[in-house]
Amino acid sequence: MLLSQINGPEDLKQLSVDELAPLAAQIRQFLIEKLSVTGGHLASNLGVVELTLALHYRYNSPKDKFIYDVGHQAYVHKMLTGRMDQFDTLRKLNGLCGFVKRDESEHDVWEAGHSSTSLSAAMGMALARDLKGEDFKVIPIIGDGALTGGMAFEALNHIGHEKKKLMVILNDNEMSIAPNVGAMHNYLSRIRSDRTYLRAKDEIEILLRKIPAIGGKLAKTAEKVKDSLKYMMVPGILFEELGFTYLGPVDGHDMPKLLETFKQADNVEGPVLVHVLTTKGKGYKPAEADSHKWHGISPYKIESGQVLKAVGNPMYTEVFGQTLIELAEQDERIVAVTPAMPGGSGLVPFSKRFPDRMVDVGIAEQHAATMCAALAMEGMKPVYAVYSTFMQRAYDQIVHDICRHNANVMFAIDRAGFVGADGETHQGVYDIAFMRHIPNLVMMMPKDENELRHMMKTALDYNDGPIAYRYPRVNGTGVKLDEELVPIPIGSWQMLREGEGIAIAAIGPMVQVAEEAAEQLKSAGIKVTVINARFLKPLDSAMLIEVAKSHAAMLVLEEASQAGSLGSAILEFYAEQEITDCDIKLMGIPDRFIEHASIKEQREQVGLTVEAVVQKVQKIKSEQSFAFGKKTLPS
Amino acid sequence: MLLSQINGPEDLKQLSVDELAPLAAQIRQFLIEKLSVTGGHLASNLGVVELTLALHYRYNSPKDKFIYDVGHQAYVHKMLTGRMDQFDTLRKLNGLCGFVKRDESEHDVWEAGHSSTSLSAAMGMALARDLKGEDFKVIPIIGDGALTGGMAFEALNHIGHEKKKLMVILNDNEMSIAPNVGAMHNYLSRIRSDRTYLRAKDEIEILLRKIPAIGGKLAKTAEKVKDSLKYMMVPGILFEELGFTYLGPVDGHDMPKLLETFKQADNVEGPVLVHVLTTKGKGYKPAEADSHKWHGISPYKIESGQVLKAVGNPMYTEVFGQTLIELAEQDERIVAVTPAMPGGSGLVPFSKRFPDRMVDVGIAEQHAATMCAALAMEGMKPVYAVYSTFMQRAYDQIVHDICRHNANVMFAIDRAGFVGADGETHQGVYDIAFMRHIPNLVMMMPKDENELRHMMKTALDYNDGPIAYRYPRVNGTGVKLDEELVPIPIGSWQMLREGEGIAIAAIGPMVQVAEEAAEQLKSAGIKVTVINARFLKPLDSAMLIEVAKSHAAMLVLEEASQAGSLGSAILEFYAEQEITDCDIKLMGIPDRFIEHASIKEQREQVGLTVEAVVQKVQKIKSEQSFAFGKKTLPS
Repeated sequence: MLLSQINGPEDLKQLSVDELAPLAAQIRQFLIEKLSVTGGHLASNLGVVELTLALHYRYNSPKDKFIYDVGHQAYVHKMLTGRMDQFDTLRKLNGLCGFVKRDESEHDVWEAGHSSTSLSAAMGMALARDLKGEDFKVIPIIGDGALTGGMAFEALNHIGHEKKKLMVILNDNEMSIAPNVGAMHNYLSRIRSDRTYLRAKDEIEILLRKIPAIGGKLAKTAEKVKDSLKYMMVPGILFEELGFTYLGPVDGHDMPKLLETFKQADNVEGPVLVHVLTTKGKGYKPAEADSHKWHGISPYKIESGQVLKAVGNPMYTEVFGQTLIELAEQDERIVAVTPAMPGGSGLVPFSKRFPDRMVDVGIAEQHAATMCAALAMEGMKPVYAVYSTFMQRAYDQIVHDICRHNANVMFAIDRAGFVGADGETHQGVYDIAFMRHIPNLVMMMPKDENELRHMMKTALDYNDGPIAYRYPRVNGTGVKLDEELVPIPIGSWQMLREGEGIAIAAIGPMVQVAEEAAEQLKSAGIKVTVINARFLKPLDSAMLIEVAKSHAAMLVLEEASQAGSLGSAILEFYAEQEITDCDIKLMGIPDRFIEHASIKEQREQVGLTVEAVVQKVQKIKSEQSFAFGKKTLPS
Repeated sequence: MLLSQINGPEDLKQLSVDELAPLAAQIRQFLIEKLSVTGGHLASNLGVVELTLALHYRYNSPKDKFIYDVGHQAYVHKMLTGRMDQFDTLRKLNGLCGFVKRDESEHDVWEAGHSSTSLSAAMGMALARDLKGEDFKVIPIIGDGALTGGMAFEALNHIGHEKKKLMVILNDNEMSIAPNVGAMHNYLSRIRSDRTYLRAKDEIEILLRKIPAIGGKLAKTAEKVKDSLKYMMVPGILFEELGFTYLGPVDGHDMPKLLETFKQADNVEGPVLVHVLTTKGKGYKPAEADSHKWHGISPYKIESGQVLKAVGNPMYTEVFGQTLIELAEQDERIVAVTPAMPGGSGLVPFSKRFPDRMVDVGIAEQHAATMCAALAMEGMKPVYAVYSTFMQRAYDQIVHDICRHNANVMFAIDRAGFVGADGETHQGVYDIAFMRHIPNLVMMMPKDENELRHMMKTALDYNDGPIAYRYPRVNGTGVKLDEELVPIPIGSWQMLREGEGIAIAAIGPMVQVAEEAAEQLKSAGIKVTVINARFLKPLDSAMLIEVAKSHAAMLVLEEASQAGSLGSAILEFYAEQEITDCDIKLMGIPDRFIEHASIKEQREQVGLTVEAVVQKVQKIKSEQSFAFGKKTLPS
């Protein structure tokens, strides 16, 4: 077994080139087996086995820097750098991270999770290298999907101008998470399909000799004609025009060809782009057949490829997708916009029902947001369906184009709160904090999937500016879904349980946590008020004033950054109102990044559990803080 | 006088093409005269006189949509759409806005201020048009500088794919705000300079006829050779590859040629890009000679071009630029990074002193941020110099690449607070709210330019992660500048004045406001404490606890969004500490966008003045809110 001999890149270098193919097969077998138990990003990693081997075989990590864009395709890299024995813990609490992770290994030099950052990282490292007078290779590895993100173009534009020496690996698998869209994709397809580009070189030389020698005025033109023929031999003219030397396309599963191309690239001055063609899911039939489904996969049966899905209530995401169809049947102004996440956002059924009203812009969160503003100005009702974490990319467009224009854009913010195994790069915990200070915006979060449906109706009926609803990456509560959708009055909260002395204001899944805690407390003789604080902006000022009159303390419970989110908004409100006799207690996410684990474990880590709420309420009851001369708590 | 006959685009259409040239001259004269008094964006508007005339002559605004990127080059558009008589109020309180403004006219269909949004807006309008079955032209007008912003590429990529009918005007003036950088710029330069492209067409036809007819195996190759010749005739191959029909380059000051090219464009199916060459400052010698200086200009003498600058203390921006040179002399790890704002950021002297350590990435805020993270990881100390408002573009990169990596990036956040005449798109009032919840970040604001210098030293000496200092777009206080720079302990505030009962915690220029208010209050017998809350994160917890013990109220004074900024942070801190007996009063910017006016007027609008602070303190002294059973105020 070759695989068991590899404890680091140096072991790999002891092998002959011929031994790399059997090693690749062993790596694939390992991944297929391990991931059948843990789940993970299978298809993309099966696609880059030879590419990763070739990189580690030719170059010297960590001196040479491999920068994996997104970073979920670094499993093979992890295997080759001494982490093979940790794959049973993949994406689990305290286990191997599903992305590149600098804590894990000196070979992990750049972390990501969001796409399209690798070229900027490469430029920074190359700049630093040259300023320090050092000598190492900088090798970003970027997928064709990630290449369409705006910041990747910003970096291409800068690298091509500065002419820094670095080698971009364009890992072109014709498919990122979703089928790619965009002119760049079409362009790459033309290169891929027109293999005559590769064969034509000799024929062109013959043809050139047939053009008669020309003097005088036409000589210069003839020279230009000959020059222009390079466009046939160099299929990547777009990259050449941007200042790169283009090499490829090269078969990414052909080890000798890869190594030969790298050798060629090393001899080029300035930036090189190596166009590598790979097949997602390579070597495992079910994944090759449906690389989209097998991008990020749950545990599965190896033989049949049957995915072992936990049975549960429908996810919020599914309820969103189905409800949007219902609404769109009634209202033809609805247009759904997604930045490359039709599947993850639950929009595939919508796209089949309304192909003309579904716009997948590719990985382009900024463009999507601004385009939505314009759609709204022309009388449409766009729904920008986006994960909380990826919406971070569109902050400026939300401020400058959507909210400043007061455009009727609806935001469907998915993955709000903890996201589990994807870990710290994907947590949806900042959107309240980075959005609630933006003028003109209304923001909601439902306590269950039925309320989500009513909020979607609320958003559709609202015509006074932008309005957002956010929902978590979890199964719904299983509540019965109302058929008739009724708009919720803007800014109205819901008192679910009237207690005495202490109120809990919670949002989203935390409402259920609050309710369960209230039940337990009731058994212990403490009656708390529970409020579904479903509007994050505007707040329910009437209810807040009422609660302050009759309660000595309010506990704010939210699965969001404690700084700047709902608790902060309530504190500001009471300060403005000069209401000082209701103590506010905050329970949110502390000021640090939360790593991969299950959502349940992540909540436990930060104390967002029924037990923690019960304890907190008991502490409030018992504590000195109530000796500050305010209301007396009921005994 | 032709100009006086133009009250709207319909009047323009009554003129003959021959009359447009004299009209253009009159428009230029008007702008040169008016702006000599008000100041404004002169050079860019002088550059687009013929282009704007040609657009309004051929198309029908507002049915056809002109979408001006950035929007500061719409003065001529405003003149042609009935706003000529308002130019005396340009950029003044309640006066004509310096950017496109929908409130002003039905001809203003899309507002901007930040660059690179026009193509996304155009795509949204074209999509809506086609979904509604309507028929109008969508015409974004984008500069060569703005084209390099990532979101413009995202939009090009999407438009080229969807093949929507729209006409992009690429207004190529070789110069946006600063000399352009980037491969795209180099590419456009090659098109511009190689005019043989345009003349070669006939010659190529002759040459093609000289290639002998070829049969058999070579026939296909010969066909491809002929095809490839289109690359010579179509200079904009990069745009063609992205799915656009490229027309141009066309002289943007030649009215008949412009009209002819538009006619051609109208006959094309799908998206067209018209490459228009214009000269910034056209028709006014001083502006033509230095279009950079004349981009945004103060009032000037028309004959001499002498700019009438108000005398004042050096701006914070200048002190920043000079201090950075001092620090960089001592520490060769310092690299300055700017997204196309070397002048505005005060970095021109630095770029001359350290050309290798100055990186202008073009309009590319996202790329700049992520590149800084990588520079820091390789041991450099990058300074990301950026305006507060433009940093909004890099929010995700700040979270995901800089703070999550805990990279030693220094942020120099200029234009923090109100910006005056540029108005609502440029206000720097959200950065505290969108940054303070990000883990690992330290954030400061100096009370004067001398403290800024010490903060820069503080940031340089700090090696535990990202650290930011923000400073306003105003003249410094004129305070003496210390020669020796001494780091300030992280998280330490400064008590400037010890009073009784009421404390004012202020940041930046508001510290001076607080001091002046304290002086006035002293005369009235009220002694307040004044604190320079120079660390926005971390807060000075020791001082906050101390102040709460001895004060009944704290007034937080900040020229920043009241939601989510310093006041909010202090409220959270006291809530966490269970300190409930010091009332917090917030004085910040309310929940709305603040339009153009002078900075002084903007502060007056929202009550951030000495008078307002004095009144607020007197109100606190007198009010019922102190009957809530807390500490007794000193009488």
